[in-house]
Amino acid sequence: MTDVRIAGVGLTKFGASPERTGRDLFAEAGLDALDDAGVDQDAVEALFYGNFMGELAEHQGHQGPLMAEAVGVDAPATRYEAACASSGVAVAEAVKNIRNGERDVVLVGGAERMTNLGTAGATEALAIAADDLWEVKAGMTFPGAYALMANAYFSEYGGDQEDLAAIAVKNHENAVPNEKAQYQREISIADVVEAPMVAEPLGLYDSCPISDGASALVLTSEAFAEEHDLDAPVSITGTGQGGDLMALHDRDYLARSPAADEAAAAAYADAGVSAADVDVAEVHDCFTIAEVLAMESLGLFEVGEGISAASEGKTTREGELPVNLSGGLKAKGHPVGATGASQLAEMTSLLRGDHPNSEYVEGATTGVTHNAGGTVASAVVHVLEVEQ
Amino acid sequence: MTDVRIAGVGLTKFGASPERTGRDLFAEAGLDALDDAGVDQDAVEALFYGNFMGELAEHQGHQGPLMAEAVGVDAPATRYEAACASSGVAVAEAVKNIRNGERDVVLVGGAERMTNLGTAGATEALAIAADDLWEVKAGMTFPGAYALMANAYFSEYGGDQEDLAAIAVKNHENAVPNEKAQYQREISIADVVEAPMVAEPLGLYDSCPISDGASALVLTSEAFAEEHDLDAPVSITGTGQGGDLMALHDRDYLARSPAADEAAAAAYADAGVSAADVDVAEVHDCFTIAEVLAMESLGLFEVGEGISAASEGKTTREGELPVNLSGGLKAKGHPVGATGASQLAEMTSLLRGDHPNSEYVEGATTGVTHNAGGTVASAVVHVLEVEQ
Repeated sequence: MTDVRIAGVGLTKFGASPERTGRDLFAEAGLDALDDAGVDQDAVEALFYGNFMGELAEHQGHQGPLMAEAVGVDAPATRYEAACASSGVAVAEAVKNIRNGERDVVLVGGAERMTNLGTAGATEALAIAADDLWEVKAGMTFPGAYALMANAYFSEYGGDQEDLAAIAVKNHENAVPNEKAQYQREISIADVVEAPMVAEPLGLYDSCPISDGASALVLTSEAFAEEHDLDAPVSITGTGQGGDLMALHDRDYLARSPAADEAAAAAYADAGVSAADVDVAEVHDCFTIAEVLAMESLGLFEVGEGISAASEGKTTREGELPVNLSGGLKAKGHPVGATGASQLAEMTSLLRGDHPNSEYVEGATTGVTHNAGGTVASAVVHVLEVEQ
Repeated sequence: MTDVRIAGVGLTKFGASPERTGRDLFAEAGLDALDDAGVDQDAVEALFYGNFMGELAEHQGHQGPLMAEAVGVDAPATRYEAACASSGVAVAEAVKNIRNGERDVVLVGGAERMTNLGTAGATEALAIAADDLWEVKAGMTFPGAYALMANAYFSEYGGDQEDLAAIAVKNHENAVPNEKAQYQREISIADVVEAPMVAEPLGLYDSCPISDGASALVLTSEAFAEEHDLDAPVSITGTGQGGDLMALHDRDYLARSPAADEAAAAAYADAGVSAADVDVAEVHDCFTIAEVLAMESLGLFEVGEGISAASEGKTTREGELPVNLSGGLKAKGHPVGATGASQLAEMTSLLRGDHPNSEYVEGATTGVTHNAGGTVASAVVHVLEVEQ
């Protein structure tokens, strides 16, 4: 089985650019990734593309071939949709296609245009990631769903709004030097706990923003990277996907994420590593509580102990295990279809040493990314390792 | 590399059932496929699911986990979207997952609910498979796009409306005994050429209907099929995918489909067969002209000769190479996300000998399926072979 190399990464700035189409955004990210890799468009054998709400935001489905065209790639192209885990799933399938020997060079990534819908329109569009029949039609949107999860967590394991606030503060701090981030500014604990309440206990600053943006990775086989003398020290050594019942009311637990547990176990086993080997993580903090659940699924903290990780300084940039050095979804932004591949792009830069926050993970060899769809009915975990 | 067995197939009746949800439809097809295979839900390791317009027709994205839940499958689930080739692509990826040893038993299929939108609403929703910015906003919908392709074909290679009508007549004749078909009734050449014009030269009977429906396949590794003594004589021996520029105005040809040429060449090479080995075909006849283009891409007829295949009786059920014995999209119906996997379900029954039209392909060993997205910006071809 070939090693899967990340030969190049590309990201647009995340933020509000409602005048830019999805194809405009993805063309930028895709071309940047090819440029970073030193790989020509003609070498790309397939596109694996994640998008979530193109039908609603741009009246555009069938985006696979459209995005291949936008990047100038003449190859089969498929769109993957798993809500907020869309491009995470695209990465997982791309990895398998290289491993099974079918492809040597692929482009993988995602894009989302959201801010043109406005906040209410985007919130309604995001709701299609929940069970429309039983959740959405009853008035449930995602802030409410994650608020239920947060309250269940508090009730079962303890913790409070200030613990969650510490996560938002940390991720904003991390985003300051990241030019791709939507919010390059610090916030305080007081800012978070005094912010307007969205769905108790989650306030405005516990919630990731509505964002436009795109991400792309060039993945190659080890043989191709060596033959073409690519500078590609980072490999994807583990991939895992998990699934869960869609609606919260059907589940046994609200404060745990079995789909992410399953994805993490599969990815670690695939890579032959354990949670103890992880030096740095990018996790799906669509709301502050989501970072807690993610870290516990990844085994980075025991169940019930993730809540205090940020407030105790363990996951800050100077802590023992920095989490979301990119700024996370919270401060870097969350253009849904772009997020999963974006996490791998950020992790690649962190491990290669060319990220503005690389200084906080010097010597790190193993990173993990965690991408979730809906209320974690879908989850994808990847393990990345760098040659030292 | 393991042989990929089709252990079971399931189909709802295609037609108008606007009161049934997508999950209701897929649950029926999925459970029927598991029953046909003699495989329990607990054995299923992943779901590969195709859907195209759930966001518009049911305000429902993230259908992967929802559909797994509907069938009672607790496993990772991914939704694939490539317009009308959505479940064809899902099959292609499922095949790779079995071949690379990652999975032994998977469920693959698709569903679409369309008729609840009405004909105008469904036509507008279908249009998102074209380039919204440059085609749809200029007034293009799919009847118009395929009419351009038909006129280009007539101009370049000859043929007329009666040649196309013979395709519709043939496919309606094939659908009569197929209880899963939307239209189990014969039509005449006169019915077709005298029908209301939709987009010249394509009339009402040159066009497939708007349909609701679902399809499912249980795929297993050869080892699993043998170990569990499954009755699974049909294998998927070849898979191929191709892509093309999205908008018609960007292409060099209107009357040829390079994406399908590419998919066919890849699938034949993968299976180690050639067009001459094909005994029976199910192709994507969303409009009558599309059947012509498909057969030529598959190499079943020379370019320019596919147009007269039906009118000369070559592709009728008594002909040398029966095409669309299911009734095709034209008469069996076209619930978009269900279509690709449905073609493989029909072909499996034809080759196993339990299809109402199996008598016309006695002794057939090799079948091919052709599934197209949009104006063939995406194409997927599969080769199926049966043990004799």
